[in-house]
Amino acid sequence: MKITAAITGVGAYVPEYILTNHEIEQNVDTSNEWIMSRCGVAERRILKDVDKASAFMAAEAAKEILRKKNLSPLDIELIIVATVTPDHPYPSTANIVADMIGATNAWGFDVQAACSSFLSALFTASKFIESGVYKKILVIGSDKMSSIVDYTCRKTSILFGDAAGAVLLEPSEDGTGILDARMYADGSGKKFLYQPAGGSIIPASIESVTKKQHFVTMDGQSVFKFAVVKMADVAAEMMDRNNLKAEDVAYLTPHQANKRIIEATANRMGISMDKVMLNIEKYGNTTSATIPLCLTEWESQLKKDDNLILTTFGAGFSWGGMFLKWSY
Amino acid sequence: MKITAAITGVGAYVPEYILTNHEIEQNVDTSNEWIMSRCGVAERRILKDVDKASAFMAAEAAKEILRKKNLSPLDIELIIVATVTPDHPYPSTANIVADMIGATNAWGFDVQAACSSFLSALFTASKFIESGVYKKILVIGSDKMSSIVDYTCRKTSILFGDAAGAVLLEPSEDGTGILDARMYADGSGKKFLYQPAGGSIIPASIESVTKKQHFVTMDGQSVFKFAVVKMADVAAEMMDRNNLKAEDVAYLTPHQANKRIIEATANRMGISMDKVMLNIEKYGNTTSATIPLCLTEWESQLKKDDNLILTTFGAGFSWGGMFLKWSY
Repeated sequence: MKITAAITGVGAYVPEYILTNHEIEQNVDTSNEWIMSRCGVAERRILKDVDKASAFMAAEAAKEILRKKNLSPLDIELIIVATVTPDHPYPSTANIVADMIGATNAWGFDVQAACSSFLSALFTASKFIESGVYKKILVIGSDKMSSIVDYTCRKTSILFGDAAGAVLLEPSEDGTGILDARMYADGSGKKFLYQPAGGSIIPASIESVTKKQHFVTMDGQSVFKFAVVKMADVAAEMMDRNNLKAEDVAYLTPHQANKRIIEATANRMGISMDKVMLNIEKYGNTTSATIPLCLTEWESQLKKDDNLILTTFGAGFSWGGMFLKWSY
Repeated sequence: MKITAAITGVGAYVPEYILTNHEIEQNVDTSNEWIMSRCGVAERRILKDVDKASAFMAAEAAKEILRKKNLSPLDIELIIVATVTPDHPYPSTANIVADMIGATNAWGFDVQAACSSFLSALFTASKFIESGVYKKILVIGSDKMSSIVDYTCRKTSILFGDAAGAVLLEPSEDGTGILDARMYADGSGKKFLYQPAGGSIIPASIESVTKKQHFVTMDGQSVFKFAVVKMADVAAEMMDRNNLKAEDVAYLTPHQANKRIIEATANRMGISMDKVMLNIEKYGNTTSATIPLCLTEWESQLKKDDNLILTTFGAGFSWGGMFLKWSY
């Protein structure tokens, strides 16, 4: 039988500090009602420690998997970290995480595709499993969004939170695992959602810092219009390609960018909201962490052979969907 | 026959401006003789245009392949950009490049593994080809190192240059293509080669800019000691694993970090320097671009079935080797 890549373990980490809408109301001109109605976020977690960042959270999520699966870190062969907020521009956060958890046999690299980083990394990792080259891969999404959010901006400060989530990927021959994926991009959407400075076009300078160019910069309405169509499209495409009817889908696991986008996707799929993994209210958009954080929170409800549709949308624009049968 | 991933086209771009050792001598306390004896760099290319960065160079390298292969950009299904100097922290440089070259059917993401980014990306791309999911992938290494080099630092300003190189990857069933690869990491080496600020541990601030923390920071001697052993080790391992004797190897294609490291690797392999792709004298260390830039410059001398060993070493530490049979 064909080898598929199966998620055989999940783990997550969220920082303790809770940033509520009430606290945000003190800093910028907004209200709990407005935030809840527009994006569905009530609170987010913030990693307050100045000496800890994405690698720390990623390592905590990874260690949860190792504990639950009773695995040695030495068993891990490859670590892929999905992140838009690596600890450093280089080396890779993956290498730092390997060192933190003692995974000295693992090589690794970071994948960056904005909010679609995790699904891109998971799809990539699945190919290393399917080809037989590796048997144990950690795919980790981790973002310390608070490091790039301007908390004086009423548009973006309400949206993002810090978190990490991880999955263990192993070969399966029982028909479960990742069965299909389709990814898309439209690079003409760059101007609607990006970080102007800190890359090679605008390196960090006194001017770029003063101009606040190292923060998330977003035309929310344009992103919303595109995202709401594309995420629903790709979810429907996943169902069509795999002959899944609404009743065949156990769960939709969407990237958590906006509650209304997720509702539109569920509606397009013809599934009710009780089949949707939705935790944006508690965490906001944690970028690369949303999908594995959902899987971890829903783990106890998942059953072997459950059909899951994973969907993502992010800057680029980049978007995509994945169909997998849960493996345990 | 088993499907392998074959490099079927190469392209590169180097900026016009040449930064010579003579010019560097005017700015920092060093000499042409010292630079040549320590790292073997005579000159590097610098992308002087302030409105152009890694995506521009990557797009130029990609367009060279499309021209040479008479391909439409619409044929490209996936673009992976290896870079430590993305245009922006997000979206991905891959998405920007897709937009620049009109590859509207391609999705993409960036891979970051420091100087090992390109080999990591190439290995990753090979798995998408081997699994049959894609038939045309562009793997591009591009770095505008001048955006993160402190030209008042005598240790690092002599080493790095700007460039891009790209390869087209397609399925092959004739026994050529990527036949083996081994990648490694040791995250405990972080402190010896990294960029302190601009990630989530030290976000950009007036202080981080003033302290010059957005530049390459390197303990050259420690890196050299580790690199000279590990790159030679992995080259020897590639030969052992694939039963290759020195006379079986047509070319060594090493990451160009330091001429002495490359010489030690060739020595360990038992091959003479005329079998080594070496252009560090002209370009310095162009990070993600070194290997595809070499392949492009040596393309006319390569023959079908030539055995190539590719080796890399970079921050992390991360290192690895690849064995491929040239396909055309």
